Amino acid sequence: MAFSRKDLLGMRDLEVDEIETILDTAESLKEINTRSIKKVPTLRGKTVVHLFYEPSTRTRTSFDIAAKRLSADTYSIATSTSSMVKGETFLDTIKNLEAMRPDVFIIRHSASGTPHRIAQRTTASVINAGDGMHEHPSQALLDMLTIRQHKGRLDGLTVLIVGDIAHSRVARSNIWGLTKMGARILVCGPPTLLPSHIEQFPVRVSLRLEPVIPLADVIMVLRLQKERQGQGLLPSLREYATYYGIDRQKLAQAKPDVLIMHPGPMNRGVEISPEVADGPHSVILDQVNNGVAVRMALLYLLMQRHESAV
Amino acid sequence: MAFSRKDLLGMRDLEVDEIETILDTAESLKEINTRSIKKVPTLRGKTVVHLFYEPSTRTRTSFDIAAKRLSADTYSIATSTSSMVKGETFLDTIKNLEAMRPDVFIIRHSASGTPHRIAQRTTASVINAGDGMHEHPSQALLDMLTIRQHKGRLDGLTVLIVGDIAHSRVARSNIWGLTKMGARILVCGPPTLLPSHIEQFPVRVSLRLEPVIPLADVIMVLRLQKERQGQGLLPSLREYATYYGIDRQKLAQAKPDVLIMHPGPMNRGVEISPEVADGPHSVILDQVNNGVAVRMALLYLLMQRHESAV
Amino acid sequence: MAFSRKDLLGMRDLEVDEIETILDTAESLKEINTRSIKKVPTLRGKTVVHLFYEPSTRTRTSFDIAAKRLSADTYSIATSTSSMVKGETFLDTIKNLEAMRPDVFIIRHSASGTPHRIAQRTTASVINAGDGMHEHPSQALLDMLTIRQHKGRLDGLTVLIVGDIAHSRVARSNIWGLTKMGARILVCGPPTLLPSHIEQFPVRVSLRLEPVIPLADVIMVLRLQKERQGQGLLPSLREYATYYGIDRQKLAQAKPDVLIMHPGPMNRGVEISPEVADGPHSVILDQVNNGVAVRMALLYLLMQRHESAV
Repeated sequence: MAFSRKDLLGMRDLEVDEIETILDTAESLKEINTRSIKKVPTLRGKTVVHLFYEPSTRTRTSFDIAAKRLSADTYSIATSTSSMVKGETFLDTIKNLEAMRPDVFIIRHSASGTPHRIAQRTTASVINAGDGMHEHPSQALLDMLTIRQHKGRLDGLTVLIVGDIAHSRVARSNIWGLTKMGARILVCGPPTLLPSHIEQFPVRVSLRLEPVIPLADVIMVLRLQKERQGQGLLPSLREYATYYGIDRQKLAQAKPDVLIMHPGPMNRGVEISPEVADGPHSVILDQVNNGVAVRMALLYLLMQRHESAV
Repeated sequence: MAFSRKDLLGMRDLEVDEIETILDTAESLKEINTRSIKKVPTLRGKTVVHLFYEPSTRTRTSFDIAAKRLSADTYSIATSTSSMVKGETFLDTIKNLEAMRPDVFIIRHSASGTPHRIAQRTTASVINAGDGMHEHPSQALLDMLTIRQHKGRLDGLTVLIVGDIAHSRVARSNIWGLTKMGARILVCGPPTLLPSHIEQFPVRVSLRLEPVIPLADVIMVLRLQKERQGQGLLPSLREYATYYGIDRQKLAQAKPDVLIMHPGPMNRGVEISPEVADGPHSVILDQVNNGVAVRMALLYLLMQRHESAV
Repeated sequence: MAFSRKDLLGMRDLEVDEIETILDTAESLKEINTRSIKKVPTLRGKTVVHLFYEPSTRTRTSFDIAAKRLSADTYSIATSTSSMVKGETFLDTIKNLEAMRPDVFIIRHSASGTPHRIAQRTTASVINAGDGMHEHPSQALLDMLTIRQHKGRLDGLTVLIVGDIAHSRVARSNIWGLTKMGARILVCGPPTLLPSHIEQFPVRVSLRLEPVIPLADVIMVLRLQKERQGQGLLPSLREYATYYGIDRQKLAQAKPDVLIMHPGPMNRGVEISPEVADGPHSVILDQVNNGVAVRMALLYLLMQRHESAV
């Protein structure tokens, strides 16, 4: 099996066969992620520590369910009540936790590169659960699994990512991952929400939705951070919805078998209309369900390496 | 066994034989709720999600212990750090959690009917752990179990509920449940704390304690929310204690084998005096202990249905 | 085995053979506290409740890992969202939790003696995880285990404790414990941070580091609470660092095999310099690692008693 990494830090540095191994493993683990099969003892005795320096229910709960379905023990370090408050350095916190012999750190932090820096200083595995505007690889992997299940493949597909590309780690991880797997990426959003050096990404850009919607096999709708308005990056939510919100009218121009995706949480009526979010093209809840399977796969593969190394 | 529901939402819609099944099951599970017997694997691999939109230690911990004694995995969604903050609709939160395939949602919410609305939209089981001023069925069931253990029966008993009936979901659930089981309910409290349409409840009302205390086999003392004073519903805590607080003097007028109950947390010296709370008639800590057994029974019975349905 | 207590409340009332039993047990459990051995079912079905009325990540997580490695179920009562808020007395909270039949309470509280008062009122075991400025016995035990592992013994060693002795429960527990085991204790700190009745402790006092550093086999550096400055107990952090901070220059005067210890979290550059904290004499991370082993030993020994008592 093509997977021998200690850490999962980003899509950009994964190889094609590693991605395939993760997706295949997730698929075979999916049956545990149902109500009919009970948990498996695969990671019994393993210790998983959640270190979330940004609020998160969805991602943290998804990782937590994944870990417990594999029988690992999990610990959540609440950063507000932690020693951080007492002025300890971040690295000292990590070293201290490390001395308690955890097997995996799952880290979310507002500063890009934090999981990478930690990974260099611990012998435990590190999973990046979102670092600044940089990467969110488990989200990209669950998106890829969802697409593959509905389309049978990733190679040759056209994926349109709509919205706040500039600030989205979800977009970045998907761009790197999907491109590697042979998909073509189109991005669309207002110029203020596109990265300043968009030419460094392997994507085609459109400022208007109309010309690119008919080309898409998949439309990934990004969450619009309403704060962008206060930052002068947006005229109004209403105008955004008119030009970039995916609604029934815009969807009518798309391929008949187009998939609609959203990483959540949704602003219904802003970047996506309720009819589209709940409509027949939407695979949004499949994404959530696949999230648990992908995270089980990641924990399993990282620990396999660990086993053989010990 | 007379139990095939998906959800437990309230006492009002339970049948007599369902209540008996729950109480009998709780009784037989009580031995697990001791220190001598270890946990049982009955719900191994099952996923229980606590969704508490009002603060609670007692009820949430009781459900959590119940679930873990049956070997279920539990998850607590901290509503303050959840996606709710990010503006997601409540229903989207539920749908997202549902996509992670939990087996049971345990829900407390300040709006009456919230667990019912969620139950209609999820295939998971829903247990109402308190909705607004509406119902709190697991509390009524643990109260009924406690009475039955001490009195040998519910049928024919007279239960006096004292205090803030108007705002109490505990009172409502007990009124519906105990009446079904053949008990007679008396309620007593200041007129400002009685429901405006008290005639719709199968109870007899008294504004004064003296005439009704001698009739009671059981006195359920309700917690007085001190905020009621600020709302103009109460003259003073001292006056309340004088007229409606259960103390040694008032207890002297009661039957010699009367039971004193309180759902907690108590305001000692307001609705109940310390001598009564800690006295020989008090079964208040039995209630807490029975709470774990009743909640184990509920989880077990709801999951049994689930098993056969799958 | 010389251990039949219900509670672990402080070092002052432990006997020498009890301390030895704890350290020996911790040593034999250390191999479970690694990644190669999986958890053991020793405490399966046991219920451990964390009641932390002061913030703590390190100690609570260490106890939690210890409990889960022994397969116990753990519950954390978040004091901010607990019934305490609703005005319940502390003792009622304990009685209520007790009625749910936990096996162990692990308690941290800002008032000295709180764990002792609770221990008298519950049949569950109580472990003091820090009470006011009084005791923090599991910290002293992990310190003693660390010294014993590096020095082969405790008897006859000279241990120098540096810093805010007056407010340190870590210092007090170590003074009682190490003295019992035959070590000699020196304390050093500014006069404002020494206890007012220092003559009641079996220690030798020095106001200056220079004369005592060469005598020490072990230097325990205490955390300096920066608030002491605002309380008029300190001139400045810089001056403190100059006179009492352990840095490379001061360490050069110590024995070549001196051990440097710190209970964490560290103020790097104040009471300890980074080179010393991370240097070859430092056993600070061993302390953290031994913390899990010592807490496993405590839980195991207290529950053994319990088993036989039932």
